[in-house]
Amino acid sequence: MTTMPPAPGRAFASDNAAGAHPAVLEAVIDANSGHVLAYGDDSITRRFERHVAELFDTDVVARLTFNGTGANVVALATLLGNLRGPHHAVVCTNWSHIEADETGAPERILGTKLIDLPASDAKITPERLSELRHLQGVQHHVQPGVVSITQPTELGTLYTVDEIRAVSDQAHEQGLLVHLDGARIANATAALGGSRAALRSFTVEAGVDAVSFGGTKNGLLGAEAVVFLRPELAVGSEYVRKQVTQLPSKMRYLAAQFNAVLDGDLWIDLAAHSNAMATELHRLVDGVPGVDAGAKPQVNSLFPTLDPAMIEHLRTWCFFWDWDPSIHQVRWMTAWDTTQDDVEAFANGVRALAG
Amino acid sequence: MTTMPPAPGRAFASDNAAGAHPAVLEAVIDANSGHVLAYGDDSITRRFERHVAELFDTDVVARLTFNGTGANVVALATLLGNLRGPHHAVVCTNWSHIEADETGAPERILGTKLIDLPASDAKITPERLSELRHLQGVQHHVQPGVVSITQPTELGTLYTVDEIRAVSDQAHEQGLLVHLDGARIANATAALGGSRAALRSFTVEAGVDAVSFGGTKNGLLGAEAVVFLRPELAVGSEYVRKQVTQLPSKMRYLAAQFNAVLDGDLWIDLAAHSNAMATELHRLVDGVPGVDAGAKPQVNSLFPTLDPAMIEHLRTWCFFWDWDPSIHQVRWMTAWDTTQDDVEAFANGVRALAG
Amino acid sequence: MTTMPPAPGRAFASDNAAGAHPAVLEAVIDANSGHVLAYGDDSITRRFERHVAELFDTDVVARLTFNGTGANVVALATLLGNLRGPHHAVVCTNWSHIEADETGAPERILGTKLIDLPASDAKITPERLSELRHLQGVQHHVQPGVVSITQPTELGTLYTVDEIRAVSDQAHEQGLLVHLDGARIANATAALGGSRAALRSFTVEAGVDAVSFGGTKNGLLGAEAVVFLRPELAVGSEYVRKQVTQLPSKMRYLAAQFNAVLDGDLWIDLAAHSNAMATELHRLVDGVPGVDAGAKPQVNSLFPTLDPAMIEHLRTWCFFWDWDPSIHQVRWMTAWDTTQDDVEAFANGVRALAG
Amino acid sequence: MTTMPPAPGRAFASDNAAGAHPAVLEAVIDANSGHVLAYGDDSITRRFERHVAELFDTDVVARLTFNGTGANVVALATLLGNLRGPHHAVVCTNWSHIEADETGAPERILGTKLIDLPASDAKITPERLSELRHLQGVQHHVQPGVVSITQPTELGTLYTVDEIRAVSDQAHEQGLLVHLDGARIANATAALGGSRAALRSFTVEAGVDAVSFGGTKNGLLGAEAVVFLRPELAVGSEYVRKQVTQLPSKMRYLAAQFNAVLDGDLWIDLAAHSNAMATELHRLVDGVPGVDAGAKPQVNSLFPTLDPAMIEHLRTWCFFWDWDPSIHQVRWMTAWDTTQDDVEAFANGVRALAG
Repeated sequence: MTTMPPAPGRAFASDNAAGAHPAVLEAVIDANSGHVLAYGDDSITRRFERHVAELFDTDVVARLTFNGTGANVVALATLLGNLRGPHHAVVCTNWSHIEADETGAPERILGTKLIDLPASDAKITPERLSELRHLQGVQHHVQPGVVSITQPTELGTLYTVDEIRAVSDQAHEQGLLVHLDGARIANATAALGGSRAALRSFTVEAGVDAVSFGGTKNGLLGAEAVVFLRPELAVGSEYVRKQVTQLPSKMRYLAAQFNAVLDGDLWIDLAAHSNAMATELHRLVDGVPGVDAGAKPQVNSLFPTLDPAMIEHLRTWCFFWDWDPSIHQVRWMTAWDTTQDDVEAFANGVRALAG
Repeated sequence: MTTMPPAPGRAFASDNAAGAHPAVLEAVIDANSGHVLAYGDDSITRRFERHVAELFDTDVVARLTFNGTGANVVALATLLGNLRGPHHAVVCTNWSHIEADETGAPERILGTKLIDLPASDAKITPERLSELRHLQGVQHHVQPGVVSITQPTELGTLYTVDEIRAVSDQAHEQGLLVHLDGARIANATAALGGSRAALRSFTVEAGVDAVSFGGTKNGLLGAEAVVFLRPELAVGSEYVRKQVTQLPSKMRYLAAQFNAVLDGDLWIDLAAHSNAMATELHRLVDGVPGVDAGAKPQVNSLFPTLDPAMIEHLRTWCFFWDWDPSIHQVRWMTAWDTTQDDVEAFANGVRALAG
Repeated sequence: MTTMPPAPGRAFASDNAAGAHPAVLEAVIDANSGHVLAYGDDSITRRFERHVAELFDTDVVARLTFNGTGANVVALATLLGNLRGPHHAVVCTNWSHIEADETGAPERILGTKLIDLPASDAKITPERLSELRHLQGVQHHVQPGVVSITQPTELGTLYTVDEIRAVSDQAHEQGLLVHLDGARIANATAALGGSRAALRSFTVEAGVDAVSFGGTKNGLLGAEAVVFLRPELAVGSEYVRKQVTQLPSKMRYLAAQFNAVLDGDLWIDLAAHSNAMATELHRLVDGVPGVDAGAKPQVNSLFPTLDPAMIEHLRTWCFFWDWDPSIHQVRWMTAWDTTQDDVEAFANGVRALAG
Repeated sequence: MTTMPPAPGRAFASDNAAGAHPAVLEAVIDANSGHVLAYGDDSITRRFERHVAELFDTDVVARLTFNGTGANVVALATLLGNLRGPHHAVVCTNWSHIEADETGAPERILGTKLIDLPASDAKITPERLSELRHLQGVQHHVQPGVVSITQPTELGTLYTVDEIRAVSDQAHEQGLLVHLDGARIANATAALGGSRAALRSFTVEAGVDAVSFGGTKNGLLGAEAVVFLRPELAVGSEYVRKQVTQLPSKMRYLAAQFNAVLDGDLWIDLAAHSNAMATELHRLVDGVPGVDAGAKPQVNSLFPTLDPAMIEHLRTWCFFWDWDPSIHQVRWMTAWDTTQDDVEAFANGVRALAG
């Protein structure tokens, strides 16, 4: 039996296993002063809306929601509602969260088919969109209405700016709107330049129409936002949010969380740190016997393949999730609060078992 | 122009305009320690579940949700899903929140008709349920499947324990399940005895099958729960919650809020105070010229009718909402944090304008 | 025990208990010649489309459907789809077929609330629409999107041309579209002038946007049509029809049925006869002891109130349905094939029992 | 320019381009006698129900519907409604009609995800079902609830009896119900033995729970049926049929059509003839230069690959549909009324163009 070194202070299960950043908690405490009107008619929410407009440097409509599934459904229901007719479908990949991990929420709530394109890298290409032209104009088929891409993808990879622009251009040429599921958009922003300009480059400047802007996985208690980058496509979104159960009554507390990390771009710093920790972990375990560390992380997750004998010992010592059990692949994910010590301690454990 | 006295520190707009109780914030801060698994697989959520089982003194299934519309939809979708077939309807009153104030969330998400019985007092009676028997067995009509009552009602009134038991008995006899929308269930509990026994008397002991258990309006930042009082009717509820976008990832923060007020039954104390403030406000304004204070509050709201000349002046000075503008009726609502000073200050303002 | 005279050849249960007119059968037989393309790409369907355009004397889009619920759902789904957002509701009366007699099809398929206005005469007025303005612009409420009126109403009464125009004008002023459920539109046309001009007066000229144009109850085997009187509101209707299961593959047989009765306006003649038979029946039973024949029929139904002792005897002898058992009210309905002999025989039976 | 021989009397576009068999028309004419109650409360419909029970030699519940999409939706909605909870999904193949050719009807009306398994031969295997076990019990994923297979498949191939039994056994072991889309079930029956025993062997005896039993493509004017082979799974089906717009009012005319072909098993004879004509066409064109006739037909369709230079000439002369234009593959389909002369004339045309 291997004697294991001390376990890390924080495991590598998920970024939503992490807590909230202290600045977020302070903002919530600060917001807890007296009465303000509910449902967003308050100054903290208005400050959030200004923040988002500055972030994207354009007129936007931003709607706070409770969680990521909620943000996706609000975004998609609003975009679909701005097309004419209930016969439009959402194009995504087989890996997309909306397809694979939301218990059918889009079908239930939108009443809409998801056309899930098989994509080994979880990315949609203009060519794949173009192939859907054979559906167009035929009454027996749903008509593609919205394409939803995820950045970073569910596989921890990134679209380049040019790739997103190409998808958007193709989508718009075919009459489709473009949604970007950014549950970890901060990690993508950090990886693609680490600035507001980087964010804009792969969203508003790349032709994206609406974004699910994640916060929870990046140090909030729990808040996400839908940002409509073309306000004319936000028509109805306030009603849609309520109808799909995503209207917070005490909105100030969600707005305050976002304000805390948008101030001074803390949101980018937190994600940059998380990304760096994943890279560091990859560096430390790459080459350890029994470990195929896989591709170098583009954001905050590794998908290593392990000697099957190691997996359960390692997991018992410090929890993580399987990815593809059939090939002994697991997922290690860092968070905004993962420390260098955590990474080193974990790598020590890996090495101990490999020894 | 009337010179107004100093305005109250807190207005009488709504109990969801109030902030969070300090104990709630402290619990959230305490919960913010290190990593725990997401989606409720954590000790704080398990403590919440034990809390609720003790509260109702029976086996229950409790599911945390973000907001009240979400709780109602999770409860109704689960109960309907435990009947056989998509042709069942929800029976409610024309005043019910699910009918009037949720932007059609039930119809959109459940795909189900709401049979909204006109009820001037917002209460359903066994007789009204019995009249729906003519629908039963006829393929051209939806079949009543769930009856949803609200306690306290949207008009601030209370069902007696016997009234709820009579509705439940009739419902069960007709094969319907019983949902209780308890967005302000704490206020009802405080008013009907102020004890856990009181809560049980009008829920589990009165035959209610599932409860939307409100927290947000009673001093939380934002959290509600669905409590299935007959666990066999909770089948599927974990999937339903996710499907209707109500599964919190960092569940611990919602559980912690509830734990803070369930400990030592703070939740009852807060509501009792809120109720008392409404009674006090009614006492102070009753008889003021130009003010018909209406019925004595049963919980935390008054629905006075005012001299129309007063309304806008008063509202500008201290905000509240209209109720029925056609008869100059307004709503004044107290909260857990309304003080005796607030009530006196407001009553002074009313008297100043009436003078 | 009363000795009853010979029973009528046809009962008075419903106009959909009647068979098909011989011309309809002949048209189906004629259409049954060789292969034609499915789904409406055939000359018989094109002839139907020309027929309808001539009928309304304007550009229209006509979509054949199988039945009346299907026609209503296709019409409403298309109109709602031409508004922006899923938060629009359908305004109707508590008596409307879509509300009371379609087992929740609209809610299930459209995901939309029906706002059912109580109306003792089953008619909507501009005033009732205007009262819905308080919902407009408030995110907590569904937004009225389509008003659906029924002509003749489910109570056998008629809107005047002016009444429909007033509802349409009010609806359009509030941004609503107007649907007319014309399951018995032929009977209304016959009653309001008996000409194509009469039809146009209460539809296209009165501001109606889309019509469910009934055929089945007026001598067809089974076929209805949705007619969009403003073609720009028909966008998506071909997909909608398929999506809601109402696209006939062998469309020619439905088109042929309609062509048979549209030729030479047989459809109006059939309905005029049916209406006349109801009037004649009313004349013959009015004043018979134990019979309150009720209002003179406007179309093809009577709603008499009978001595309770008569009802079951009469029904056993010649079937009809109850209407409001609590007041011993029944419904007697004539059809395109009801004869003078049928009416006299039935009246003889009524008199025999009354005697 | 090739001089073409005389074109066939009937093209090879589709079996739903064919008309109705004379016996079907006669049955409709016979049914057109006097008044009968609507919605199936008539002797012709009862005769149909007895017919179906005899056909399957067991207690069944049979529900007539208008068309195939309607039958599929009624079957699936009822089966799903007999599971507990709205989180169940339908498993099918990427080729299945419900997935590819119904404009999203299942998602819209059922609110349910279709898990479309890629299958080059349009068949589901027990192994593919078994792989879905990883979804089971995880709240983030829909739970497989019904598996829908098509017999014959959309590619014109057949499951063997053993293959269907294996799928059913695996499905039931995993808690799934089994639906068989039999839009062309007569062709499968004819091909697998040409007897009622053959039908039973691959349906009720192979563990299928509900069947969409096609009639329209096999010589009816338009009628399909849902047959629940385990009556306890038909609970709610009468309401479901109405709710999804598939309840015919003048039901007798649909029942009469089916009765005409069920009498003396004409339905099997018609399909056997159609199948034979496809085999004959394959025989006649196989080996013609420029024609790859593809696999020998199992039922009534060929999927030949043609010299691209031929396709448009041939189609102009005698219409048919493309199948996969990227490889110049087309579909030729025979019908109950295709004659030996038609087949020979068509083959002559193919040879003329090839020459």
